[in-house]
Amino acid sequence: MLARLLRQMPPTARAARAAMGVRRLAAMPLHPQKKFASKYFDVEEVMFADQPEQIVRGGRTLFPKLPAALEGVKQIGVIGWGSQGPAQAQNFRESLEGSDIKVKVGLREGSSSMKAARACGFTEEKGTLGEMYKVISESDMVLLLISDAACVEEYKNVFKALKPRTTLGLSHGFLLGHLESVHEQFPADVDVVLCAPKGMGPSVRRLYEQGREVNGSGINASFAVHQDVTGRATERALAWAVGVGSPYIFQTTLNAEWRSDIFGERCILLGGVHGMIESLFRYYESHGMAAHEAFKTSGEVITGPITRTISHDGIKAVHDNLSPADRQIFKTAYCASYTPSRSIIEECYDSVSSGNEIRDVVMAAKRFDKYPMGCIDNTRTWKVGAEVRKAGGTPEQRKAVPVNPLTAGVYCAMMMAQIDCLYDRGHVYSEIVNESVIESVDSLNPYMHARGVSYMVDNCSVTARLGSRKWAPRFDYILTEQAFPAIDAKAAPDEALFQRFLAHPVHDMLKTCSSLRPSVDISVS
Amino acid sequence: MLARLLRQMPPTARAARAAMGVRRLAAMPLHPQKKFASKYFDVEEVMFADQPEQIVRGGRTLFPKLPAALEGVKQIGVIGWGSQGPAQAQNFRESLEGSDIKVKVGLREGSSSMKAARACGFTEEKGTLGEMYKVISESDMVLLLISDAACVEEYKNVFKALKPRTTLGLSHGFLLGHLESVHEQFPADVDVVLCAPKGMGPSVRRLYEQGREVNGSGINASFAVHQDVTGRATERALAWAVGVGSPYIFQTTLNAEWRSDIFGERCILLGGVHGMIESLFRYYESHGMAAHEAFKTSGEVITGPITRTISHDGIKAVHDNLSPADRQIFKTAYCASYTPSRSIIEECYDSVSSGNEIRDVVMAAKRFDKYPMGCIDNTRTWKVGAEVRKAGGTPEQRKAVPVNPLTAGVYCAMMMAQIDCLYDRGHVYSEIVNESVIESVDSLNPYMHARGVSYMVDNCSVTARLGSRKWAPRFDYILTEQAFPAIDAKAAPDEALFQRFLAHPVHDMLKTCSSLRPSVDISVS
Repeated sequence: MLARLLRQMPPTARAARAAMGVRRLAAMPLHPQKKFASKYFDVEEVMFADQPEQIVRGGRTLFPKLPAALEGVKQIGVIGWGSQGPAQAQNFRESLEGSDIKVKVGLREGSSSMKAARACGFTEEKGTLGEMYKVISESDMVLLLISDAACVEEYKNVFKALKPRTTLGLSHGFLLGHLESVHEQFPADVDVVLCAPKGMGPSVRRLYEQGREVNGSGINASFAVHQDVTGRATERALAWAVGVGSPYIFQTTLNAEWRSDIFGERCILLGGVHGMIESLFRYYESHGMAAHEAFKTSGEVITGPITRTISHDGIKAVHDNLSPADRQIFKTAYCASYTPSRSIIEECYDSVSSGNEIRDVVMAAKRFDKYPMGCIDNTRTWKVGAEVRKAGGTPEQRKAVPVNPLTAGVYCAMMMAQIDCLYDRGHVYSEIVNESVIESVDSLNPYMHARGVSYMVDNCSVTARLGSRKWAPRFDYILTEQAFPAIDAKAAPDEALFQRFLAHPVHDMLKTCSSLRPSVDISVS
Repeated sequence: MLARLLRQMPPTARAARAAMGVRRLAAMPLHPQKKFASKYFDVEEVMFADQPEQIVRGGRTLFPKLPAALEGVKQIGVIGWGSQGPAQAQNFRESLEGSDIKVKVGLREGSSSMKAARACGFTEEKGTLGEMYKVISESDMVLLLISDAACVEEYKNVFKALKPRTTLGLSHGFLLGHLESVHEQFPADVDVVLCAPKGMGPSVRRLYEQGREVNGSGINASFAVHQDVTGRATERALAWAVGVGSPYIFQTTLNAEWRSDIFGERCILLGGVHGMIESLFRYYESHGMAAHEAFKTSGEVITGPITRTISHDGIKAVHDNLSPADRQIFKTAYCASYTPSRSIIEECYDSVSSGNEIRDVVMAAKRFDKYPMGCIDNTRTWKVGAEVRKAGGTPEQRKAVPVNPLTAGVYCAMMMAQIDCLYDRGHVYSEIVNESVIESVDSLNPYMHARGVSYMVDNCSVTARLGSRKWAPRFDYILTEQAFPAIDAKAAPDEALFQRFLAHPVHDMLKTCSSLRPSVDISVS
């Protein structure tokens, strides 16, 4: 069904490339190098625009297959209790209910998270909570969900503690990025697999819970097999993704994952949208709008109606829903914002891909004792935002705020610039739309809508929080310095650029994706 | 005289360290490893706080000694016509007038700068202008003043073109930083020396011209000898520094130079002051000040009276000149701003020292064809600034604007945070004060005062321009997110932090430095 829908959608590869207006990199080292197969899960082959991909659909109906897919695994150790740990440990435990596979949480001795884990039913008495290295050394599958900084500090000891032929699971390729930068490797005698849910931990849990009522609700995930010594790495990685509730699972590589992930959160997912709202709020205020109105027109419009429209109907629908007059304003704003946004986005990709961002994160962690990360929502913009939320009526009323076409044009331009950058750099389409669109509208923006920017950003990983703090100001400045003056000067829009937007193959893909998504309410109360 | 003055000044090493409130790094790899001597110039040994340094005083009276110090050099090739090229070529030529040493400018074939060089009297007819590789291959001393990006592209060809036993001169350690990052080295058969004027090219020229009337006017420079195959490298480097008009020359290493230079311009020299003014302007406007008043209170106060006070009387004088009531506001603002500023400053130093910033610059240059650097003074802040300058009266009137104590506290805090960072990282004191204070108040801020932020930033190197664009927004955000809310909340000042400021050994040093400076007018018309 999915396969059929998707096959109908794309234009030919050539037309798709022409529509993108870009030339593809000759080599695609970020694409998976070979096809995968599974004895337990249906693998569907689909065409996303000009790219063939293999995907697996998840869902609760598959939970009974998990024990067989996890054959040889008696205990799954979930190490860490940050953003992903609580969500994945609880989801996987629930999905495996009735089997003899134990999910055991491993934490540092004396960790303050012990209490939180116990409150979720992981306890020493039941043998489902313990000291991390002990849990690592006794587990057949180890999901290493400690922070990136902790990974850098602990990886040597973790590697030593792993039993031979254990399946080491990562939810992020960060550790590979770090190993590359210090010229080291994973131990040769273990599997290394990835399951990377495309949303922060709290929404991985929330949508899984919603899935009890609506089968298929959950956060999409990418998976990858980096080392396979047991011959069972693919089945275990897929079982993991299904077990934590992913409705749609696609293949990537660890190399592509860490690049797109560290990049995406610095741009439209967190840093980009943060800086954009700061800059738009100021823009509207300096053009005479009262404070509450200015925040509604910037922050509320993005996290409310635009987010809902993109989630349900895709990016182009934001444009199509506007009146003819408003479409002109959208077009001007889009064209004024695309290239400035893209310039920062390209800089960010280079910074990530060269290893600079990983080095930055590792160095920042060493400064935390003296210079901890500060509060980001203490500024005028977010204080006004808090007032607006307080005064703002029901979630439905707040989502019904009229869409300002200028805000819409700026937001869509940055999102499209990120999509084009990832495409040009050679990422698979599933990764592109998940890291640029779906994670934003189905996981992150709803958190900002509910409780502000810091609730969104600071519920993410330290790597994401640092990156968001680093890049938000850059997007703010480039829009303020380049895009807004062009909008005010009523600069003639670049017609070719805008036609590329209207004809972009990503729109059909997103329309299909949203038609496949169960109709759960993604808003956060 | 200088030596005596400076010897009187510092407290004991122990007291100085205690006053800094910091522990020095055990090793000091950024300090010069051995003493230097000269047959032609007087070398004075001075104590800066707890550090002994050797310095040479420049001045026009030394110009007659240059030919002897440059023995063996018949032709000096000045390669490049960016920020430093025009200034150094003209200054050195003028200083060597009457000798038989030729200063010849070398540029790329067909370079648009050929015309500008001819306008300054460097011509093919006189044999003082030519194609760069030809000039390199025929010169005995080659001052490589092309842009950092061009260095990265051209260095292999430059190295090939150098005659054996040539003295290769750099005004920046950037190339060493790049060579380290690609694991390469300078050719073994040439001298490698540094003369790094602590100001942008236009002010190196301006102050040299003022020096015709006032002996000793000029921009300080650091020098370093990285390779010495001729045995004459030190004399040539010193002659170069004297020849371009430096009044005060101190020793450093290439490693220390590129770190402190790339770092300093990202912080208080360019990026820091840029972001600070943007954030202060917004702060004052959002607290009800009219636009012109807000810019006067932020931008004008910093580049006008504060800059003049620090140039003449040092940093502490900014505080001491305030009324008792205003000193309280200064103190609150200082204490609220120091640690947030320091956190970005430490991040920046790490980013520079790890090679990340150099990698960033190299990658940015590859994007310029598609994403050129944009205009930075198109924002509301700088447009209001331009109006203020236009309406603002004489330079003297503009410098007499009353000092706002909040602005003063924020500015001095960032400057002191930079000084402390460089000290902790192990730089020599001369380098610290030149890269943190003197370059700012005697070279850069006067340019911003005269014509705005872009006139200051975009007259600097591409590395500086990129870095300023990258870090200005970070300083803006950290002040807006952390410092200003603390000021508004009237947070109790950290007494120990403020006592460290009042007792800091840098104040005595700066007082002496300014007493040694000829009283030229550093304002730019």
